[in-house]
Amino acid sequence: MAVHSSRDPNYEARVRASFAAQKFMATIGASLDRISPGEVVISLPFRDDLTQQHGFLHAGVLGAIADSACGYAALSLMEPAAAVLSVEYKLNLLTPAAGTRFVATGRAVRPGQTLTVCSAEVRAIGAESEVLVALMQSTMIAVRDRAGLRD
Amino acid sequence: MAVHSSRDPNYEARVRASFAAQKFMATIGASLDRISPGEVVISLPFRDDLTQQHGFLHAGVLGAIADSACGYAALSLMEPAAAVLSVEYKLNLLTPAAGTRFVATGRAVRPGQTLTVCSAEVRAIGAESEVLVALMQSTMIAVRDRAGLRD
Amino acid sequence: MAVHSSRDPNYEARVRASFAAQKFMATIGASLDRISPGEVVISLPFRDDLTQQHGFLHAGVLGAIADSACGYAALSLMEPAAAVLSVEYKLNLLTPAAGTRFVATGRAVRPGQTLTVCSAEVRAIGAESEVLVALMQSTMIAVRDRAGLRD
Amino acid sequence: MAVHSSRDPNYEARVRASFAAQKFMATIGASLDRISPGEVVISLPFRDDLTQQHGFLHAGVLGAIADSACGYAALSLMEPAAAVLSVEYKLNLLTPAAGTRFVATGRAVRPGQTLTVCSAEVRAIGAESEVLVALMQSTMIAVRDRAGLRD
Repeated sequence: MAVHSSRDPNYEARVRASFAAQKFMATIGASLDRISPGEVVISLPFRDDLTQQHGFLHAGVLGAIADSACGYAALSLMEPAAAVLSVEYKLNLLTPAAGTRFVATGRAVRPGQTLTVCSAEVRAIGAESEVLVALMQSTMIAVRDRAGLRD
Repeated sequence: MAVHSSRDPNYEARVRASFAAQKFMATIGASLDRISPGEVVISLPFRDDLTQQHGFLHAGVLGAIADSACGYAALSLMEPAAAVLSVEYKLNLLTPAAGTRFVATGRAVRPGQTLTVCSAEVRAIGAESEVLVALMQSTMIAVRDRAGLRD
Repeated sequence: MAVHSSRDPNYEARVRASFAAQKFMATIGASLDRISPGEVVISLPFRDDLTQQHGFLHAGVLGAIADSACGYAALSLMEPAAAVLSVEYKLNLLTPAAGTRFVATGRAVRPGQTLTVCSAEVRAIGAESEVLVALMQSTMIAVRDRAGLRD
Repeated sequence: MAVHSSRDPNYEARVRASFAAQKFMATIGASLDRISPGEVVISLPFRDDLTQQHGFLHAGVLGAIADSACGYAALSLMEPAAAVLSVEYKLNLLTPAAGTRFVATGRAVRPGQTLTVCSAEVRAIGAESEVLVALMQSTMIAVRDRAGLRD
């Protein structure tokens, strides 16, 4: 994994402010654990109201925290004037998502001027285990000069 | 689009019961609008607590309703003994998801004994418009004889 | 499917010239059957030297004709100054690709100023049958002002 | 990356025989460089007849070697009675594929009884550089008891 440098010295404050503005992250109880240039970790305690029909975490929730982790990994490298939007993401579910906590680590694999290709891993943490439950590969876009879009 | 026939005459009741057991769908306020063999429509009113940082519906929420629509399109064709799990999904975000209501239509494109390939479209409904905002292509798996997994 | 209009009245000649410059299409024996704004059809006769280990058409060949069909569906809508590159593609293989001829139909689902989201279907034509064997969902990018990149 | 063990002591000979049966790999000039349980490296010298319209390696060729590398990474872990088929793959193109040689490394990320989730990286090797040009995330299936399908 290449080590990246940010075009924004205040990248951490900026990513934290944008994450705080993602109301859906608060709705599901996700928190932003760690930020470094090109890598962001989001975690989510298990909650019964986030499950699918078998009682596992819903694949859409796994996708949401992985997508946000990818988006902020990309944003952490962008200059202050750019906002980030998801172009597309692909998620493989490796095994049913059982655990007490879920940790999504998003990474910018190839940051570009316009597009940033990212990947994310989601791990389920249990009492005595840690299992990789989902893998994402995604594309983020830097949006500039669009009224009302920031970060 | 091929017309499919279900291997379960009670497919509608079965899909409705499984959807009702997906607590995450209730959490976000999604409802199951229509079921036919191989096609399922889920709708979701806009809510402020489901948004990303720019006030649009979070891409993870779009993914969640599209994934559930695909999963139930697949399940509607399976025999009663099978449960459905998501193998993977890929979502393209076509334009920022602004609207008062979002409608995900999932279809089984190629139902198989083990795997079912699905696609879904998500439309944003506004006061005077209807816009395609997301497109999904996904794979579902029929799980049999696994303790505790039903539908 | 929306009907699109091209920003280039000479779109057909332009797409044909670019296809003719794709040496890999000639290498595998693919031909450009039909072009309309936002939709391109490429066909490929079966050849034994394009197979995987079981004698079916290699998934990479299916991906190649579907990717080219998507790329040219996108290019057919772009203004003359733009070149097209693939950002990403996702291919589902629905059933082993057996047939005497393979037809990939690519469509621009959502053409944008920078990105165009496309989908493609690949059908295998046999003596008495026609089967959908692969489904693609992809993203193309319009590249402008990059030295040496045309169409 | 987890270290995997194969269910077939002769996995290397078996993968090599199957690769030799993939006529398309010979057609494009690809060779199987290295095999270990769960990881396979395929390389391909640049050839002018494998290019797209701008003279770069065609995205379909990148997809083909990455797909084969993933498939054989999965097969290397399977028991002798199983054959491998691609379910789906997703490829991100990171930068135009210019180079004298291309190296695809496929890995089994999560091998299962039926499905194996894989990832692959493709690097372009130039006179003085090595660049990551494509990233794949894919799903392979083990097929058993299907007449005529081996490895």
